[in-house]
Amino acid sequence: MNEMTFQIRTEGDSCLYEQIYGHIKGEIRSGKLLSGERLPSTRSLAEYLQVARSTVDCAYGQLLSEGYIESRPYKGYFVCPIEELLQLDSGLSALENRQAAVGAMPGGREEPYRIDFSPYDIDMSGFPFSVWKKITKNILTDANSDLFAKGEGQGDYSLRQTISRYLHSARGVECRPEQIIVGAGNDFLLLLLEKILGRDVRIAMENPTYKRSYRIFRSFAYPIVTVDMDECGMRADRLEQADVRAAYVMPSHQFPMGTVMPIGRRMELLKWADGGSDRYLIEDDYDSEFRFRGKPIPALQASDRHGRVIYMGSFSKAIAPAIRVSFMVLPKPLLEIYERECSFYSCTVSRIDQSILNVFIGEGYFERHLNKMRKIYRGKHELLLECLGELREEFAIAGENAGLHLLLTSKRGIPEGELLERAAGRQVRVYGLSESSVEEASGGAAVLLGFGGLTDEEIREGTALLKEAWL
Amino acid sequence: MNEMTFQIRTEGDSCLYEQIYGHIKGEIRSGKLLSGERLPSTRSLAEYLQVARSTVDCAYGQLLSEGYIESRPYKGYFVCPIEELLQLDSGLSALENRQAAVGAMPGGREEPYRIDFSPYDIDMSGFPFSVWKKITKNILTDANSDLFAKGEGQGDYSLRQTISRYLHSARGVECRPEQIIVGAGNDFLLLLLEKILGRDVRIAMENPTYKRSYRIFRSFAYPIVTVDMDECGMRADRLEQADVRAAYVMPSHQFPMGTVMPIGRRMELLKWADGGSDRYLIEDDYDSEFRFRGKPIPALQASDRHGRVIYMGSFSKAIAPAIRVSFMVLPKPLLEIYERECSFYSCTVSRIDQSILNVFIGEGYFERHLNKMRKIYRGKHELLLECLGELREEFAIAGENAGLHLLLTSKRGIPEGELLERAAGRQVRVYGLSESSVEEASGGAAVLLGFGGLTDEEIREGTALLKEAWL
Repeated sequence: MNEMTFQIRTEGDSCLYEQIYGHIKGEIRSGKLLSGERLPSTRSLAEYLQVARSTVDCAYGQLLSEGYIESRPYKGYFVCPIEELLQLDSGLSALENRQAAVGAMPGGREEPYRIDFSPYDIDMSGFPFSVWKKITKNILTDANSDLFAKGEGQGDYSLRQTISRYLHSARGVECRPEQIIVGAGNDFLLLLLEKILGRDVRIAMENPTYKRSYRIFRSFAYPIVTVDMDECGMRADRLEQADVRAAYVMPSHQFPMGTVMPIGRRMELLKWADGGSDRYLIEDDYDSEFRFRGKPIPALQASDRHGRVIYMGSFSKAIAPAIRVSFMVLPKPLLEIYERECSFYSCTVSRIDQSILNVFIGEGYFERHLNKMRKIYRGKHELLLECLGELREEFAIAGENAGLHLLLTSKRGIPEGELLERAAGRQVRVYGLSESSVEEASGGAAVLLGFGGLTDEEIREGTALLKEAWL
Repeated sequence: MNEMTFQIRTEGDSCLYEQIYGHIKGEIRSGKLLSGERLPSTRSLAEYLQVARSTVDCAYGQLLSEGYIESRPYKGYFVCPIEELLQLDSGLSALENRQAAVGAMPGGREEPYRIDFSPYDIDMSGFPFSVWKKITKNILTDANSDLFAKGEGQGDYSLRQTISRYLHSARGVECRPEQIIVGAGNDFLLLLLEKILGRDVRIAMENPTYKRSYRIFRSFAYPIVTVDMDECGMRADRLEQADVRAAYVMPSHQFPMGTVMPIGRRMELLKWADGGSDRYLIEDDYDSEFRFRGKPIPALQASDRHGRVIYMGSFSKAIAPAIRVSFMVLPKPLLEIYERECSFYSCTVSRIDQSILNVFIGEGYFERHLNKMRKIYRGKHELLLECLGELREEFAIAGENAGLHLLLTSKRGIPEGELLERAAGRQVRVYGLSESSVEEASGGAAVLLGFGGLTDEEIREGTALLKEAWL
């Protein structure tokens, strides 16, 4: 290593250790320091740079632990073999740039947002941390080695019993534990469902819809037919002509429109499904727990008399995204296929996590948590409505009954892009409805305002900024 | 409910509470007690049956918690609506019977096995329970709510860094954390890999092979071509004419044959893969940690210079099956496809579990655990070889260098079925090689003896019984 090329800015704002570490790492990654090359000893580099030897030690330690260099006893430090790393660098830089851009503002601005009205965030301050910790501790205390052994592919029977009881009482879902498949997230369960339904299933989706599910079906190469919505949700009368085998719906609270599907439309959907021996409705009940007005509406599955509904639910929204436990309730014909062809797939949730959740639900903590969160979200929901104030004259507001976001449509027809940009100008992030659109940009004038992850103060500040931006 | 039909055998061997519970449950499931029907009050039933009221309370409580009955305030107990349950019963009974049969002996015997030489079991007594508990506790203590938020789709970067360092030092695998996808089990990762590789990938597998992977590829409807093995493993010279795009191999320790692939054959495989722009080797390194003789052999991926190897590993065998953490290292071209088309898939491992594992590996506990287990397994391995004694004259033994099972082939050609049956006659379970065979029954004379899950005493007893059975 040519020590002369190494300059440190002692007056800079990054510390000496970081400068040394960063410099050497850069030299290795750019190929200037080659594999096997010997680095100067920490003593000599410290003398040369006129810094404490411990500073160089720290930098080398970090490089060592990241695998850039290796130490050989009695010989010193050497650059690790990294041919593969170099080859990769070019390919990965695009990825890294893209990741960095995720948080960036429209128009490529680097400024961070002050307030992010994300419809995907939830309030983690309400997480029952001490309860979770206590249950975990008890389970690890009581646990025999059984818990660390392999469990059933569908998930532990006791957890499935608990989920089936919960679904029955909270959502009116009728199912036996045998019908439930527990999995680490909806994505995994959809991958499994693909194996059950088979290839090339023509599937209907609402437009706009939940984009993640759309991407997943597209990754299955399922032909996707979008079916328009009206104020009751997906237009069931369009399904026949759409010639689909399955329809993906969110009857309790459609994302992003917020529509709650009335019983009449539900019956129409079920009638369509009954009209063919191989038709199914995939019900994504993703945030049914959070309904603020009126009584909870039972799941579509609760009205299903002929086994046409595949019910999907998750604890990610209700407890925490990190609780990777979702479940799917299979109707009898699909359960038979699962049993025959897919039951060898291992469960993706560890038995420890299953046990924690089982206790959390079974001992009533989940219900208490939901009641608490419903109250918190109702408060935020009302605060947001109240804070919107004059904006309510300029915007039509939808989705007021449930869930963690509102849908605002400009009555004057200000285009979505302009709404986003003007909000971004005040460092506020709102979400365009077209992001959820399956077809090309809708050219609409609507935005989503999520409030789940915001504090009361942020809701007040954010809406004040939006008024400045939009009025 | 006709109380007169209700007879209890007070002298029977199941307790009163269970009899009452079982009787009512049976009446509901068989449809004799209908939905909505009122049950007698606990007092009147207790009087009628001449048992303590608390006994009836217990039975009702259980039925309540299993969802068979419901209580209505001031009205009593009623049978829950269970039309769907009844419909399901017939369909599910087949499943239940099948599940019950899993543990049954060949020939339909009901007797349990005394000793099970399962090649899939591991020793859970060595699980570092207190360390795991301590780490979990520390993580839940230090944790801010971040840990409960959603993480990166590929898995937390810090865990991927730790895995990449571990793979580099332990397996010679060269990869950046960016190439690693963390997932809850190999099954999930293979589902993801299908999305990356695409449909209808013609794939070569060794025959015999690991049956679970075979079933998974079959569930993808991948055309599977079996390629014969010789003493070096998969015959690379057959790949060209097999006209496949991918080959699934276990070079470190082939399951079930136990073959360790020498460097020459590895090079032949890599050469085959280099011969097409779209050819890949899927390396399943499932139990490379447990090698008892000689130095560890680096992974096939370590010799891969052109990004043709997809490396798969798991902590299920090395730590515990319940630790649902596997990982896959993607070569550059596939990483690009993943990034473009699959990166929206959420990670299936909770961030808490990722953090526990990260500390477990990063702070050296994993290495210590592996050293400990290697010693334990080496001991069992040597004990088994020693205990086989005279059986070594009658059987050829393979797979002596690594892993948790041996392969015994009868020199006198006693057919596999007979070996299994004679062992079962002494209540010992051994595993036929043909179970791992992809094609129809091989008609061979070889069995697998796993020792991972057995105690020393069980190994001694099991081998003594096998001598009685086979000599």
